[in-house]
Order: sequence, then structure tokens, then C-alpha cells
Amino acid sequence: MEYKTILVNRMDGGITLTINRPEQQNSINPDLLKEINHVLDLAVNDPLCKIIVLQGQGGVFCTGMDFNEISGKHDNFTPGQIHENRDSKEVSHSRPYLETIKRFTLIPRIVISVVDGRVMAGGVGLAAASDIVIATPRSQFSLSEALWGLLPSMVTPFLIRRVGFQVAYRMTLTTMPIHAREAYEVHLVDEVTEAPEEVLRRYSLRVSRLDEWTLGNLKQYFRKMWIISNQMEDAAVAETDRLSSEPKVVNNIINFVKYQKFPWSE
Amino acid sequence: MEYKTILVNRMDGGITLTINRPEQQNSINPDLLKEINHVLDLAVNDPLCKIIVLQGQGGVFCTGMDFNEISGKHDNFTPGQIHENRDSKEVSHSRPYLETIKRFTLIPRIVISVVDGRVMAGGVGLAAASDIVIATPRSQFSLSEALWGLLPSMVTPFLIRRVGFQVAYRMTLTTMPIHAREAYEVHLVDEVTEAPEEVLRRYSLRVSRLDEWTLGNLKQYFRKMWIISNQMEDAAVAETDRLSSEPKVVNNIINFVKYQKFPWSE
Amino acid sequence: MEYKTILVNRMDGGITLTINRPEQQNSINPDLLKEINHVLDLAVNDPLCKIIVLQGQGGVFCTGMDFNEISGKHDNFTPGQIHENRDSKEVSHSRPYLETIKRFTLIPRIVISVVDGRVMAGGVGLAAASDIVIATPRSQFSLSEALWGLLPSMVTPFLIRRVGFQVAYRMTLTTMPIHAREAYEVHLVDEVTEAPEEVLRRYSLRVSRLDEWTLGNLKQYFRKMWIISNQMEDAAVAETDRLSSEPKVVNNIINFVKYQKFPWSE
Repeated sequence: MEYKTILVNRMDGGITLTINRPEQQNSINPDLLKEINHVLDLAVNDPLCKIIVLQGQGGVFCTGMDFNEISGKHDNFTPGQIHENRDSKEVSHSRPYLETIKRFTLIPRIVISVVDGRVMAGGVGLAAASDIVIATPRSQFSLSEALWGLLPSMVTPFLIRRVGFQVAYRMTLTTMPIHAREAYEVHLVDEVTEAPEEVLRRYSLRVSRLDEWTLGNLKQYFRKMWIISNQMEDAAVAETDRLSSEPKVVNNIINFVKYQKFPWSE
Repeated sequence: MEYKTILVNRMDGGITLTINRPEQQNSINPDLLKEINHVLDLAVNDPLCKIIVLQGQGGVFCTGMDFNEISGKHDNFTPGQIHENRDSKEVSHSRPYLETIKRFTLIPRIVISVVDGRVMAGGVGLAAASDIVIATPRSQFSLSEALWGLLPSMVTPFLIRRVGFQVAYRMTLTTMPIHAREAYEVHLVDEVTEAPEEVLRRYSLRVSRLDEWTLGNLKQYFRKMWIISNQMEDAAVAETDRLSSEPKVVNNIINFVKYQKFPWSE
Repeated sequence: MEYKTILVNRMDGGITLTINRPEQQNSINPDLLKEINHVLDLAVNDPLCKIIVLQGQGGVFCTGMDFNEISGKHDNFTPGQIHENRDSKEVSHSRPYLETIKRFTLIPRIVISVVDGRVMAGGVGLAAASDIVIATPRSQFSLSEALWGLLPSMVTPFLIRRVGFQVAYRMTLTTMPIHAREAYEVHLVDEVTEAPEEVLRRYSLRVSRLDEWTLGNLKQYFRKMWIISNQMEDAAVAETDRLSSEPKVVNNIINFVKYQKFPWSE
């Protein structure tokens, strides 16, 4: 398969997936989600591929949903038209995004995010839902959604799983970034290092001792021991769909994409 | 409105509420709860008032329920009489207290507690339920309820939301204070600073970019993403009512208020 | 009563229980669980015994289930025979283990684990379910179950209660030990000290002020304020029973006990 949004490399005992949309700041579009899932399929069908490494490049891990694509959908935008489109679910990226990060948490493989640089919005969810997150000291994580009238709805349950309620809430409310060190202290990051390859090698060696059956059991079991439910996930998708089809929110996004105008600078 | 228990000041983009019961150690009585809610009403009806700052004075933030008032209710106290009063719910402060701190977590405004000094019992709940807590280094937090045979029942769900189960449990069981630094590490406090005004200004600037609609969405949404339910809150009120009408507990409180005698020094 | 697996000493206001199976690395067998419960019975029936101290010796707190006993049950082992034994519940140690650590969390007494050295697998559950854990700097905690195809199923709910989801998940997945300092930072340990006796004395003094009725109320109440339910506990027992009767897992254990062969070295 030819990939449009990622680079894929085999490594010993695993596969490395590099998000490759540098001009779009490694933002998420439907192709990226499809291609990530394609790599997950490959991994699941290969008993020798136990580890999936997810990374960015050029100082950017992932910056969340692609605003250009959301804006493009409303190209001949008038408030009235947006209102009419409100029920059209066909354009929603939210369900595929949620299913992708949820899959990280259930697949009988080990998903390791290697973060070097900026992580924003939906990108935080990719990391938060990973089994292990390794980050360089210059990395930083932010949830900017509320500035646009959105919420990190689908990130929230997986972020709370890692950092607890208050830190997830504060990140959402203040929209301020947290740096690698603090991210480590709150367990959003499992290890901070200048040499992610070495740490990755150590984790890989250790987890290579677990077989596929055990990994599957482990992930299924921990799902039962925590508060995330299918209903909570449905609520997450519904909230994203509701907010992202609000005329006010669409307006905020279009103004930014077309005129570089921020909502708070009106 | 003339306030009996608080001082109220307007500031740019918000309102400052200072608990003003210095002779009662800034403890909570029904008037205080009414007046706090009056300020919340003002804020909600003013689109320009986005931030509500809650603070104490003289080195005391708030020391919880006013034992003098509880004691006063049983002025001609004999154990038998207390027993008869047990079902009378009319004097319960517990529901208004719970509804007040719950309201902090749902109101489309930002509630910021600025703590400088002592916080005890129900005062910890005022802080814990706030969106942001800023504290000076000399601040300390303690849950002394168990010493009297009570529990911080209504504080618990909001405290666990911030600090997790074990820290809330340990604070309750040991009744020992934790200091600002530790409170920061466990996320009971969001920032420790010698200059709360500056930190407050920074947060105010940042959150001023969020509109009322987004704040409301955010708070409603996070409520769905965590374990606090209406039933849990009802259980919290019921437990406080049950314990605070126990003759043994009333006796402990009266002995302390009237004779400065501690339960463990009998 | 003569104890086979523990040493019991009275102390002022409490009782000290030392796990005494040095040749079996202080591992857990049915006798140990019975004897721990016997001591809990003694404590509950003695109003003056408020504190139960649980400790190990010789640098080992507790190393989890005794593999020799599991292995011994399948002495004339062939894979087919194991399969036949699968439904036999009579040999399960899982329910008594879960009920023992659950009892720590509900008994109107204060259970304090004093850890000096190694804690593994089910031993981590004994500590995690304790009210207070005091540890020396050389202590370390690990969950090695997944290496054998098992899971720390019954430890998990009580561990998550202390350390949150991610730390419990990472410990299970990586099977790597965490040291006293990190255990303190994640609240698996409440205090790290070179002088556990002094810290123990301080806690004892403080909690001696709480009466039995209050301790019972406190524990019952906190159970309602968190996510552990009877169903979750049943799922924990069922998962342990399921995994520990899998031929593959039994094989791993027998190969280790009889031939010192690790699953990953085949």
C-alpha cells in the first residue's frame, strides 16, 4: 500500500509509523486515520510485530484535527447553510478518530508514542491512549479546543485515565501548554529522555516477553477496571459532532483559516 | 444588598468575594452560604463578570462548619433531647453547602480560590470544588472531621476528583494537615506563589478568551466524564446529616465549644 | 493459636503481624491467608487493638502467590489432565486472597503495612489495600504476573485506588519494579523513611484519637465514593481463576518451579 499521510518502517519486533503531513502541521484528516488503522491491521496480522511506534517529525508530533478540511467543507459559507448541514453526519471525523484511539487501548499489541515537540488537541489523544509515551524534554502538550468553542471531548476520557480529573480539566479550561517535565509528573508521559531510541529499546526488550494472548487479556481486563464505557464514548462523539456543527464554532474556524483572525480578537 | 458574612468587590472581568467572619475563624454558617449564592447569581446575570474569586483573610481561608452554631442548636442539651430532634431536617446546613460547591462546578463562570493560610474541613471543599486554586506557601489544608466523629462527607467526592482516592482517604484518616507544596503536588492546589494577584491576572487573561457558552459546555461535559453522580451527592448529604445528629458527636462538639474539651482527652 | 506462617506480637494499642515464610520468600499460601484473618478477628474483638501492623522480614515483604503450591497441585502433570481439572474451584486461592485484602479496607481498624525490601505480585495487593504504607528507601514493588501469562487481577482495583489507572497499567504491562521514592510519588507508599518505627509511632498516636465507630463509618463511606464494586471484585476473582487454570500458564509455572526455566527463554 502507498501511504499519503504516514511513513512506515519495519523494525525488529515491530513497526514504526511516522505522521508525515509537515505542511499541515501533522494534523489529523480522514486519510491519516485510515492509514493508521491499516498499519494496526498489518501489526495484528503479524505475530512477530508486537510493538507499534507512533511518532511525528520536525518538532511536531500531531496538532489535532485539520482546520483547513473543516473549513473547506463550508467553502461557500453563509450561516444559514451551515445550519442546514447540521444533521449531515457523513462528514464527521469524530467516530473514526475515537475508534482509532480506543483501538490503541484494546489491540493485543503495544502502542508506544515517541513525542518530540508539539502535541495539540486531538494529538494529545493519540498520545494519551498509547500504552507508553516517551517524550523529549522540548515536548509540550496543549488542549486549545475551548478557544474555538470546541472541547477535547474524545481526548478527555483517555486523558483522565492517565492524569486524573483535575489536570485534564485544568488543561482544557486554561488551554495552556504543559511541558515534558510536568507531563511526566502527571503521567501523561511515562519517560522523558534525550535519547528516545534507547528508552524505546529498553521497553521493547521488556515487553517482548509478553505474548499476544497475555497482551489481549491485559487490555481487556484493564478496560473493566476503569470508568470508560461505551456510553461515555458515544457521549464523546456526540459532543464533538454537536459543537463542531455550531454556526458560531464553524465561523471561528473559517475566520481563522481564511483571515488568520482569532475568536478573541474581534 | 448588605452582606453580613462577606466582602464583595468588583474587578475587571469579575468579582471578588472575601469571607469576612474573622471572629468565627471564617467558618461556614447558613448566612455565608446564602451570600455566596447571591454573588453567584450576580455573576451569572452579568455577561461581563466571568471570574469569581473566593478568598479569606487574616491567614484563614475557611475553617468549615461553625461549631458554635451547631452547639447553639442544642443549648439546653441533654442526650435524650438530641435523640428526639434527630429527624428534624430543617436545621440541616448540609444540603445548602453541597449545592453551593456543586454549583461552583457547573456555573458557566470561572471560580478561582485564592488561599492564604488555613483551610479546614468544609473549607477544603470550597477550594476543591473551585476551577482553579492558587495558594501562598504558608497555606495548609486539613480534614479534622474524624476527630469529632464526623466525616468530610460532602468534601470527599470533590476532593477525590482533584487528588485521587488515596490522598483524600489519608487526609481524612490521619486528620493531619498538608502544606501548600504537597497540596500542589497532589493537585489540590494548581499553583503556589508568593504573589497570588499576578497569577490570578495571568489566569484571568487566559480564560477571558472563553465565552459563557463554552464554559457551560465544558463544565457540563466534564461532569459526564467523571464518577460523581446525583446519588453520590445524596449519599454525602445523608451521611453528614446522620453523623451530625448522633448524640455522641453532638456531645463532642458541645464539650469543645463550651468547655474546650477534646474528645480524645476524656 | 499456634501460627505456621506468621509471627504475632502485641504492641501498645495494636498488634504486629510478621509474615514468616523466609524459605518461601514470604509468598502467600492458604495458611497465610487463614492466619492473617485470624489476627484480624483478634483485633476486631479487642477494643484496645486499633492498629494492625503488617510486615515482612529479611528484606522481603511478600512475593505473591506461592508458585510451588500451584505447581504441586499438578504434580503428575500432563497438559490433558490440567484441562480436566479446569472447573475444579476447590483449589482456588483467589477468593480468600481477595476477601482478605478487601477486609483490610472495611475493618474498623487501621491496617498499616511496613515495607522493607521486595514486594511482588499479590504482595503489592497486601500493601495497596492497607490504610497506610510506610516503606524504607530500599523497598521496591513489582507486578511480574504478565511474564507468566497471568495478570495481577485482584491487585488491580486496589492498586488503581492508590496510584491511578496509568501507573497501575504501566506496572502491569512493563513488569518493571518501581522503587520506594517513585512509589511514594505515585501514592503507593504514604511515607518513605529509614526509621519506620518512628513514623509508625506518629501515625499510631494520631489515629488512636479515632474511635472504632468512626473508623467503620469512614471505611464504609469511602467505599461508596469510589469505583470498586462487588461485580468488579467478582470479575477479578474470575479472571485469576481463568488464567491460572490455562494449560499454557500452568506449564510456565511448572517449568519454572521444576526446571528454573523462564517462559521467554524457550
